[in-house]
Amino acid sequence: MKKFMQLFAVAALISTTANAGWFGDDDKGADVTKDNTVYTLKLAETWPSNFPIFGDATKNFAKLANDMSGGRLVIKVDSKNKHKSALGIFDFVKSGQYDLGHSASYYWKGKDINTLFFTSMPFGMTTSEQHSWFEYGGGQELMDKVYSKHGMKSIIGGSTGNQMGGWFQKEINTVNDLQGLKMRIPGFAGEIMAEVGAKPTNIPAGELYTALDRGTIDALEWVGPSLDLRMGFHKVAPYYYTGWHEPSTELQFLINLEKYNSLPADLRSILITAMKLSAYEMYVQSEHESAKNWASMKKDFPNIKVKTFPKPVFDALRSANDKLLKELAAKNPLSKEIIESQANYLAKSRAWTAISDQSYLNSQSK
Amino acid sequence: MKKFMQLFAVAALISTTANAGWFGDDDKGADVTKDNTVYTLKLAETWPSNFPIFGDATKNFAKLANDMSGGRLVIKVDSKNKHKSALGIFDFVKSGQYDLGHSASYYWKGKDINTLFFTSMPFGMTTSEQHSWFEYGGGQELMDKVYSKHGMKSIIGGSTGNQMGGWFQKEINTVNDLQGLKMRIPGFAGEIMAEVGAKPTNIPAGELYTALDRGTIDALEWVGPSLDLRMGFHKVAPYYYTGWHEPSTELQFLINLEKYNSLPADLRSILITAMKLSAYEMYVQSEHESAKNWASMKKDFPNIKVKTFPKPVFDALRSANDKLLKELAAKNPLSKEIIESQANYLAKSRAWTAISDQSYLNSQSK
Repeated sequence: MKKFMQLFAVAALISTTANAGWFGDDDKGADVTKDNTVYTLKLAETWPSNFPIFGDATKNFAKLANDMSGGRLVIKVDSKNKHKSALGIFDFVKSGQYDLGHSASYYWKGKDINTLFFTSMPFGMTTSEQHSWFEYGGGQELMDKVYSKHGMKSIIGGSTGNQMGGWFQKEINTVNDLQGLKMRIPGFAGEIMAEVGAKPTNIPAGELYTALDRGTIDALEWVGPSLDLRMGFHKVAPYYYTGWHEPSTELQFLINLEKYNSLPADLRSILITAMKLSAYEMYVQSEHESAKNWASMKKDFPNIKVKTFPKPVFDALRSANDKLLKELAAKNPLSKEIIESQANYLAKSRAWTAISDQSYLNSQSK
Repeated sequence: MKKFMQLFAVAALISTTANAGWFGDDDKGADVTKDNTVYTLKLAETWPSNFPIFGDATKNFAKLANDMSGGRLVIKVDSKNKHKSALGIFDFVKSGQYDLGHSASYYWKGKDINTLFFTSMPFGMTTSEQHSWFEYGGGQELMDKVYSKHGMKSIIGGSTGNQMGGWFQKEINTVNDLQGLKMRIPGFAGEIMAEVGAKPTNIPAGELYTALDRGTIDALEWVGPSLDLRMGFHKVAPYYYTGWHEPSTELQFLINLEKYNSLPADLRSILITAMKLSAYEMYVQSEHESAKNWASMKKDFPNIKVKTFPKPVFDALRSANDKLLKELAAKNPLSKEIIESQANYLAKSRAWTAISDQSYLNSQSK
C-alpha cells in the first residue's frame, strides 16, 4: 500500500506550513454545549441478568454512553429478571414505559410482519454482507420505515455470527430423513422445516438437554459454540450440523423516538455511536467465544462429528423458503420491497465474497 | 432465539415494579463534566485529499468526535497534499508535530520491525478473525507494547477486507511461472515473492497502468475492486488473481500519548470510540464498494478471468513466508511473541470459521 503515497503529486494550493490548521483558528466556542443536565434512560433487555455476550453488549453500551457523556447520559439496564417479560420489549419501548430496548427484531413478527427481516433470514447474508446492507444497501432506511410507524428506531445490536444448524441424534442424508423429525427450531426456520415434513416442537430452554438426551426430540438448534457449550448438548448428541437458517443473527437496540428527540444533539450522537460500537464489538466477542469454546468442545469430545446437509436437502429447504417468502411478498408491499432489497444485495455481495474471503479460505484449507 | 426468554426462571430478589430504576435515583451530578474548553487536535493522514474510503474514515471520525462532544473536540485533518509526507505520519505523531495520524502500521517496519504485524500478514487472519484477535486475543495489548515505546497508541483504523492477489498478463500454473516475473508488489509480500524467484519492482502509482499495458511489468497488486476499478487495470490485463498476501488490511489511527493523557476523561472516551466505530464502518464500506465495483467490472468486461494460484504455488509461497517469519522471530523476542500469538489465534479461529462462514458459503455456492 505504499502505492497511495505517490498517487497524486498535487501542487500546494494552500499554506505549506505543516503546523498551520487549515480550518483557521476559531475555537468554535458557539457550538459548545453548556447543558449539564443528567439524562437517565431506562433500557429493558430480553435476556436474564448477566447473560453472556448479549448482556455484555448492553453493559458495554451503558458504559460507553456514561464515559463519553461525562456522566450526563445514564443508562439503567433492566434484565428479564427485573421486568419479567422477555418478549415485552417492543411494547415497553413503544409505550414509553422504557426508553430503550435490547432484543431481536424477528420476535415482533406477530405485531408487524415486516420486523421479521432485520435479524437474519434463512439462506441469507453473512455478517459482513448484512452489515454492509444495513449501512450502505438501504437496510437501515427500510428498518426506519418499519419502526417509525411504531414511534421507534431500531439500531444494530450485535451479531452472533453464523449460527450452527444444530445438534442431531442421527445423520440427515436425504429429505426423507427429515420426515417426522422432532426438532426444536423456532420461528421462520421452523416453518420451513415444517414445509419439508419435519415436526418443529417448542420446549422450554431448561428442559432441552433432557429432551435431547432421552429422545423426546431428535434434534435442536441453539446458537453456536459461543453459547452452546454451557448447555451441554455436545455430551448427548453426536452430530453437529453446520448452519443455513441464521447466517448472521443481528440483535437490535430499540429507541423510543419521542424520548430520542427530546435529547440534546450531542447525547443523541453519543447514544447511537455507543450502540453501534457495542454491536460491532459483540460480533467480535461472539467470534472469539465461538473459537475458544469450539476448541474446548473438540478437546473434551473429540468424536463430535461436524456434518453439512447434502445438496438435495438444501434444495428442498430452499424451495420451501422461496415459497414462504413469495407468500409474504404477495401479502404486503413493504415485505416485498424488503425481500427484494435483500435478494438483490445478497446476489451482488456474495459474488464479491466468493472471490475474496471464500476463495481465500478454500485455497488455504488443508 | 425465543429460547433465551425462558432460560432462567429466576425469583425476583429486587423490586418488581417495572418502572423503578435499580441504581436508585441519584442523578450522579458530581460526575458531570463542567469543562467546556475546546480541544483542537491535528490529524495527518497518509492519503491525498478526498481519497475514497480511507479518507472517508477520517472524515467520519472527525464528525463523530465533533458531534458527540458538542463541538468540544475538534479534529483538523491534513491530507498528504497539505503536509507533503505520506510516510511521515509516524514521526509527525511521535514528535507531537501532529496529535493524531491515520496510516498503516506496516509502513513503519524500517523504524521498528514490530510495527509490521498489525496491518495484515500473508496467509494470515481474515477480517473477523483479526478483529477478534485485536479485541480479545491480545492483539491490542501487543500493539500497545510496541507503540508505547514511541510515546504513541495505535487503534484499528479500518479494514479494506481481503485484498485481491492482483492483475496478471499470463496464467500462473506452476512455481516456474513465477521465475523472473516482474511484479509490482511491495513490502513483506514482495520479499516472499523474491524468495520464490519473482522480481518485485517498484513503480510509482501514476505509471502503473501504462507499465502493465506495455509489458514493463507482468503483474501488479493494488487493493481489490473497491479501489482497483478507478485504476483501470481490468482494461489491460485478463487475469484477476484471488488474494493470499493481505487477507485483511487494517489501517491504523495513531495517537500521541502525551496529548491523549492531557484530555479530559470524557473526550478520551469519545476519541477512542469515534476511531473504533469509523474503523468498523470503513470495513463495511469497503465490502460495499467492492461488491458494487466488482459487479460493474464484470458487466463491462465479462471476459475477466478470476484465477487462484494452484496448491504447489501456494506451498512454495507459504514455505518462503514461514522461513522469513522464522528469521524475524530469531532476531527479536517481541517479534517472536507477536508471531506466536497470531499463529495460535489463527489456528483456533480458523477452525471455527471453517465450520461456520466457510461451510455456509461452500454449501450455498452454485
